[in-house]
Amino acid sequence: MNFLEERIVRDGIVKPGNVLKVDSFLNHQMDIALLDEIGREFKRRFQGKPVTKVLTIESSGIAIAYPVAREFGVPLVFAKKSKSINIDGDMYVAEVESFTHRNKNQVIVSKKFLTKEDHVLIIDDFLANGCALQGLISIADDAGATVEGLGIAIEKGFQIGGKVIRNLGYQLESLAIVDAMDAETGAITFRSQEN
Amino acid sequence: MNFLEERIVRDGIVKPGNVLKVDSFLNHQMDIALLDEIGREFKRRFQGKPVTKVLTIESSGIAIAYPVAREFGVPLVFAKKSKSINIDGDMYVAEVESFTHRNKNQVIVSKKFLTKEDHVLIIDDFLANGCALQGLISIADDAGATVEGLGIAIEKGFQIGGKVIRNLGYQLESLAIVDAMDAETGAITFRSQEN
Repeated sequence: MNFLEERIVRDGIVKPGNVLKVDSFLNHQMDIALLDEIGREFKRRFQGKPVTKVLTIESSGIAIAYPVAREFGVPLVFAKKSKSINIDGDMYVAEVESFTHRNKNQVIVSKKFLTKEDHVLIIDDFLANGCALQGLISIADDAGATVEGLGIAIEKGFQIGGKVIRNLGYQLESLAIVDAMDAETGAITFRSQEN
Repeated sequence: MNFLEERIVRDGIVKPGNVLKVDSFLNHQMDIALLDEIGREFKRRFQGKPVTKVLTIESSGIAIAYPVAREFGVPLVFAKKSKSINIDGDMYVAEVESFTHRNKNQVIVSKKFLTKEDHVLIIDDFLANGCALQGLISIADDAGATVEGLGIAIEKGFQIGGKVIRNLGYQLESLAIVDAMDAETGAITFRSQEN
């Protein structure tokens, strides 16, 4: 097991309905040392990619993307989930369905911050059905930017998202891929990875 | 002018209605080196405080709070703006009105992550009418935690929030206090600070 899988086993909680709670260290209370280590690991896995922007989606994605942007020395851009009166001018828009909140959001990125010169590394905390990632890929495509890869902290390997995105030909790196969870015993089965 | 004021003058845009757009470096696209410097400056201003948690509110607060939590070597906890099916158990709740989005949100923090043993440093990107900060203070109070101070990137000095919070006796540190803006000329007047 890698450092993130070990942490999930130690502090993650499996709930009925295939819910994995990691809110004590990843997406409500955040362990900054762990997140910094996640940043270094993504730098290693995407070593040599000419990344110019890290792209994520609010909210918890921001805390994963921050150390990655830091490692690459590039700006972080986060997609917003609703139109704000403080955003003007043209923007890229994609529709995203949330598994967690069971609703649909428009996500937007200002056209000022993604262009065809950009090489984008897309980062998020969770991958399940892949709607959020597909929305971010769609926004990068609209900008004419190059998607250099996608980095996820925790992938639910028993849902379709990861397969879809890998089938599209992208380099998708998930630090922990959960293939099965048992809410009764709390057992978590990770997919073995070569990294 | 300090480093943040200089950056606001260089890249901020004044819009009618007392709107200051800093979305090219602070709350949509984010300059990580600048944020790291903000983290170091808050460490300096709250030097010696026995901080055990940094508390902020989603979304853009997370990117300001990350480097602060990193400097203090403590966890980051962010208040969420709506009830998620992934949050269970008891939580602290406060009602917050958003100036930007002109709506009201319930903000919540799980009781697991704030206790009476905690010494909290509250961080956010903007302070205007102060509703968000008052909500976070209320949550810390409900937890029985000690509020060691509040750190803000940009305070709108012509709105009431800063005065209210200072009158309550808190150490409120705003790295840039905008006392006036002129949308026609783009001029920004900062309050002079001893720091």
